[in-house]
This record gives sequence, structure tokens and C-alpha cells, in this order.
Amino acid sequence: MAKEIERKFLIKRELWQPKGEGVSIRQGYLSLEPERTVRVRLKGERGFLTIKGKNHGISRMEMEYEIPAKEAAQLLDELCLRPLVEKTRYTESYQGQQWEIDIFAGDNAGLAVAEAELESEAAELVLPDWAGQEVSGDARYYNSSLIHNPYKNWQS
Amino acid sequence: MAKEIERKFLIKRELWQPKGEGVSIRQGYLSLEPERTVRVRLKGERGFLTIKGKNHGISRMEMEYEIPAKEAAQLLDELCLRPLVEKTRYTESYQGQQWEIDIFAGDNAGLAVAEAELESEAAELVLPDWAGQEVSGDARYYNSSLIHNPYKNWQS
Repeated sequence: MAKEIERKFLIKRELWQPKGEGVSIRQGYLSLEPERTVRVRLKGERGFLTIKGKNHGISRMEMEYEIPAKEAAQLLDELCLRPLVEKTRYTESYQGQQWEIDIFAGDNAGLAVAEAELESEAAELVLPDWAGQEVSGDARYYNSSLIHNPYKNWQS
Repeated sequence: MAKEIERKFLIKRELWQPKGEGVSIRQGYLSLEPERTVRVRLKGERGFLTIKGKNHGISRMEMEYEIPAKEAAQLLDELCLRPLVEKTRYTESYQGQQWEIDIFAGDNAGLAVAEAELESEAAELVLPDWAGQEVSGDARYYNSSLIHNPYKNWQS
């Protein structure tokens, strides 16, 4: 178990370039209730099951378990709610802080989001130049929200 | 992953006595949707996360993962839907077939159910004398149904 503390920012795409290959992520949900979301994820060759509680500020309870990739694929193909979320994840560090950069595909193409996981809510964070608007508290950007309301349906 | 094939029977309580100590089970749900139920279970000192698909006849997809008991307890206490299901499970064999016997407590006190897991839908099953009415297809007896409609509310 871990309390997850994350800050999330939109990416200024003209200022960010991938530095590596990235890993392909395909994920879906067995529960979308904010009090108890259950996510199935295929990340490259590995499978994960992740349970998250409700947000309290920028903290939320999170438990993650690795499961066989074949079973994750089966859960995604047969049981998870539609549509699935597809994206490529790049990881890089800036001033000692690890960032996860998600470039979405499919129904969410055009969306690009960066997340930094922090030790505490008060931890200082030095922003890279490509970090745009902060969207940490904005439920529209939850991957679980993108099931019902994918980016292609948003008004610009 | 396994396709689970089970037959379920009510127990004639006057003909059945516990032969051993039994193990205490406390369980709850993160999703009650029949297409994708997610169950958290504390069974004695061990924790489990179980995902089940929809029934097809008496078969359904089932995947089970062991998780730390402490985390299972935390999920039950903080995230699972209310009320939880509590029961004591006894395991015994009859004519080479393993049976799981669940004696419910709390809101489901009075309910006693036995399950046999079979190799195939056509497998032969010799019934003990304490096996009463078969309820394999009856959704009321799903543990997941007992959350919304516990046994104490049933009409006798």
C-alpha cells in the first residue's frame, strides 16, 4: 500500500521531444467508481492490477499487483469496460525529479500529460520548460474519466 | 486463469456437523457488476483478490491473486462496498470429491451452502446425504448478491 502524491501537467508539445523509445500501455477498468477504481494494465510485456481509492487533495490510496501479462490481456479483451485507453509512456528526469510523460493515442490522440510523483504534498518541484498548465485536481484528465469522455470529444 | 465449474447446494443442517475447525472468511467487493466482479477476501491469515466474469451456464472466468493480508484488510475496511460478507468455511471430501461448506454469519446467519468444483460441466457428482436443494443457477445465492439482499431479508 502507498499513498500516491502526484502533480500533473499538460505538456507544451513544441518544447518536448521523446529522448527514448517509450513503453506501450494498454489499460482498462473493472470499476470506475471513484471510491474504488480497479485498473488492468498491460505495460510493455508486463501486466498489472491497480486499485485506487478516492482522492483527498492530491493524495489517494493506491495498491498495485503484478499479474501475468497473458491474464492482463485476457481481462482487457474480455472483461474491462470499453473503450480501452492506449498511450505511450516515456520516463525522464529533470533536476533529480522523475517524470512520467504520457502521449495518448486512439480516441485520446492529441492529449499529452506529464506526472511527477512526490514524497509529500509540500515537496518542492522544479518545472521543466515543457511543463504547461497544471491539471492535478482536474477530474477530466483522470485516465478513468477518458473512458466516458475521451479527449476527441472535448471542446477546444 | 481458470474456468470455474461449480455446483452449489443448500445444506440440511440437521444432517451436517463440522468435522474440523473451519477457517474464518471476511469478504467484500470493489465491483458488483456481474460482467466483472472484483472480490477482496481475508481467509484466515491470507489475503486474496479475485476477478470473475459473467456466468455461462455453470462456468465463469475466474482469476485469483494472493495479496498481503494487511492490504486485504485495508481494502475491506476502507474501500469495499458495505456490508461485508462473513462466514466460516469448512472443507471436507465425500467419495473423492472435495466440498466447501460455508456457514454464514452476521446479516446472512442461517444460510448454509456447499459447493463442489468440477472438472467439466458433465462430470458426475455423488451427493452426500446432507446435500439439499441445488441452487447452482440461482443468483440470490451468489455472495455478491448477499451485499444488496442479505439472507435475513429473504421471505421464508
